[in-house]
Amino acid sequence: MTPCLDTVIVNGLVLTQDSRATVFANGFVAIDGNRIAAVGGMADAGRLPPARETVDAGGRLVMPGLVNSHTHLPMSLFRGLADDLPLDRWLNDYIFPAEARCIDAESVRIGSLLSCAELLLSGTTTCCDGYFYEDQVAAAVLESGLRGVLGQGVVDFPAPGVPDPEDNVAAAADFVRRWQGRHRRILPSIFCHSPYTCGSETLKRAKAAADRAGVLFQIHVAESRQEAERLQSEQGAGPVAYLDRLGILDRRTLLVHAVWTGETDHACIAARKSAVAHCPESNAKLASGVAPLASLLSAGVTVGLGTDGCASNNDLDLWREMGFAAKLQKVALDDPTVVDAATAVNLAVGGGARALGLAGVVGALETGLAADVIIVDTHQPHLTPMYHPQSHLVHAARGADVSDVWVDGRRVVAGRRLLTIDLTALTAAVAVAKRRIVDSLAGA
Amino acid sequence: MTPCLDTVIVNGLVLTQDSRATVFANGFVAIDGNRIAAVGGMADAGRLPPARETVDAGGRLVMPGLVNSHTHLPMSLFRGLADDLPLDRWLNDYIFPAEARCIDAESVRIGSLLSCAELLLSGTTTCCDGYFYEDQVAAAVLESGLRGVLGQGVVDFPAPGVPDPEDNVAAAADFVRRWQGRHRRILPSIFCHSPYTCGSETLKRAKAAADRAGVLFQIHVAESRQEAERLQSEQGAGPVAYLDRLGILDRRTLLVHAVWTGETDHACIAARKSAVAHCPESNAKLASGVAPLASLLSAGVTVGLGTDGCASNNDLDLWREMGFAAKLQKVALDDPTVVDAATAVNLAVGGGARALGLAGVVGALETGLAADVIIVDTHQPHLTPMYHPQSHLVHAARGADVSDVWVDGRRVVAGRRLLTIDLTALTAAVAVAKRRIVDSLAGA
Repeated sequence: MTPCLDTVIVNGLVLTQDSRATVFANGFVAIDGNRIAAVGGMADAGRLPPARETVDAGGRLVMPGLVNSHTHLPMSLFRGLADDLPLDRWLNDYIFPAEARCIDAESVRIGSLLSCAELLLSGTTTCCDGYFYEDQVAAAVLESGLRGVLGQGVVDFPAPGVPDPEDNVAAAADFVRRWQGRHRRILPSIFCHSPYTCGSETLKRAKAAADRAGVLFQIHVAESRQEAERLQSEQGAGPVAYLDRLGILDRRTLLVHAVWTGETDHACIAARKSAVAHCPESNAKLASGVAPLASLLSAGVTVGLGTDGCASNNDLDLWREMGFAAKLQKVALDDPTVVDAATAVNLAVGGGARALGLAGVVGALETGLAADVIIVDTHQPHLTPMYHPQSHLVHAARGADVSDVWVDGRRVVAGRRLLTIDLTALTAAVAVAKRRIVDSLAGA
Repeated sequence: MTPCLDTVIVNGLVLTQDSRATVFANGFVAIDGNRIAAVGGMADAGRLPPARETVDAGGRLVMPGLVNSHTHLPMSLFRGLADDLPLDRWLNDYIFPAEARCIDAESVRIGSLLSCAELLLSGTTTCCDGYFYEDQVAAAVLESGLRGVLGQGVVDFPAPGVPDPEDNVAAAADFVRRWQGRHRRILPSIFCHSPYTCGSETLKRAKAAADRAGVLFQIHVAESRQEAERLQSEQGAGPVAYLDRLGILDRRTLLVHAVWTGETDHACIAARKSAVAHCPESNAKLASGVAPLASLLSAGVTVGLGTDGCASNNDLDLWREMGFAAKLQKVALDDPTVVDAATAVNLAVGGGARALGLAGVVGALETGLAADVIIVDTHQPHLTPMYHPQSHLVHAARGADVSDVWVDGRRVVAGRRLLTIDLTALTAAVAVAKRRIVDSLAGA
């Protein structure tokens, strides 16, 4: 421990979310530089060296920042643009034309900043993103103070910023090269869109590029019944078995959605030590299906929780997602005991950290881990009384209850005020982008 | 219009939720006494008489207060007491013992005030409640400034405050007599718990008492598969058909849950002009099932949205409930077009008002209706940009976004501060009640 700490958060109900689920009813979290220097009960706080700043949590809940395992940050610009439509009309009449006409480096920057603001203000400190113009996403994440695992998108057709599909894997690999080792909070990755938008050669080349750099490979898998049936028909295997045949599944692969998967798939995912990003609200809103979360967990698969992009959810609030995940699985399986509160919280904290390859970096309050810490203002009527903190986090808390956020030791939210982004200027820029999107669709 | 108004809310994005779904992109709502005096566009605001108070909505969203069609207000004391359990263990090991040992007039008062605070702070201005010691519930609702349709509970076994089941209907009817015509915001009702906890004679006598007073009759119906099967076996009819045979179904009957019902039931409910309170989060968390909301609506049944009590949800946030209702129905029916945003909002506003017999009283911003008005602070990252206001209300807004609330013309929340209840004193009282509950269960 250095002679002088940067920050000590005192008098908190501290949920460490460590492997022993340690809770300090009245505890502290000490931050030194970008790391957690110590966590403990207030009885031991007297032994701490002096800190430059002491923050009194006043009995409120202190826990690790949340990890959002699947986002498309720039798509916040399409939030609520079109809802309640069949998937093909939603994509072909709204999302694809809006992307083709309005997504450029600047709109990606603006949309990403908007999403970063929403994430930080709701207590998410790490996200795992995939989109195009990902350099702009990375710049926004860096500027906002968020931590991100970020992948340049790969599809086998012309995409925003990558007009020639021949360049898709090279562009993704170049992104990784530009960002690897550049900043602690930016972890580059490669994001292949899906097994139906990328051919087998593209998938293999992209995975090989990810492997060469030692970075995470993300891919949408088995999101819809149509996709699963198409792969079964064309490849003679379901999406998971098909990817496994290509050698895609290993400990650095994150499978997003995994809705139309069965127990054989789950055993395979577990054996390969791949992880799953579970996005139940998006899957429900698009009527894609109910992912077999309980079966995945039973099989020993590492599962994180994701909101998906704002075009299909329509927010980035992981608290609401936790409650939805738990309740949906209970009713789908006719069993109120599945996905209990501790399990649901873990999806959004430690499970997410492991899914992104960040175990030992974030996802718990432990000495030596990055100081990604949030305070949840539990002193409100809807969180009163409190018998079991995790129950409230899953079934009653919401993004707006997060009052203070540190990422990598830096305070980014104080008393519900975001310190890193000028929201007035950002809102004005979003209004301009919105007008362009509306005009482009009207003129279609 | 009187020479002087009490309040004018100006510069709002006004969603009237009237029968024509009128929206004023830049509008006003004028309040005179307890009623809405006028609603219109700012171009016409110059013709308004002077007002004692002018509130500038600054472009934020102004709409009618929400209507929660099913609550058990005092049960906020059991929020998160026990989750993730089979229904019988949850009831027999936690809820029933806690109710038997700790529910008295004072705990009902404290729990109800806590719920009223949560409801008002999240923009709900009317609730429909059923519990015991309902006089204390009514006193709390009155004190808080909320509007309530409130029913004293009836069951055929000893209940809190009604030790002899012989007195159950008389106690409920006495409650109605005490409160009928006493205050505009308190609408008494009779709440029979269910067709499996009340015998046929009790059901008929309670309904007759409600009819004599001309008040709403509330009853849990077809919540679980077990209930439906038991009635089918014992009465040779499902719950809805059984109640219809007893003559219970008419325009002043509110059926709560209606999960295990089919198209024949829905046609019957529609023909009798009874209404349904839909509680999807509670039904999911307890794994009761997915209520056939789309079929009920197709059959022409009036449906309101309810959170149920905090022991099974675990909050009273109708925004979260709207999003859950829409998404759950889409995924359950494999159809992203069902329960569109306008339909989901209507469940929580006009649908709820009609379900409670309050059409023409609340549920829209129209001249002559009660002035139950809320401002939603849409100037936040998670509600930006805005293409379709109702989409945001269903899929991105949350209770904490409500900044200002008027009920019956009285301002009860201003800038997220509750004006009617001392939250510090209330929180201390809840802590005492909680301690008693924990001790009583530990000593069992």
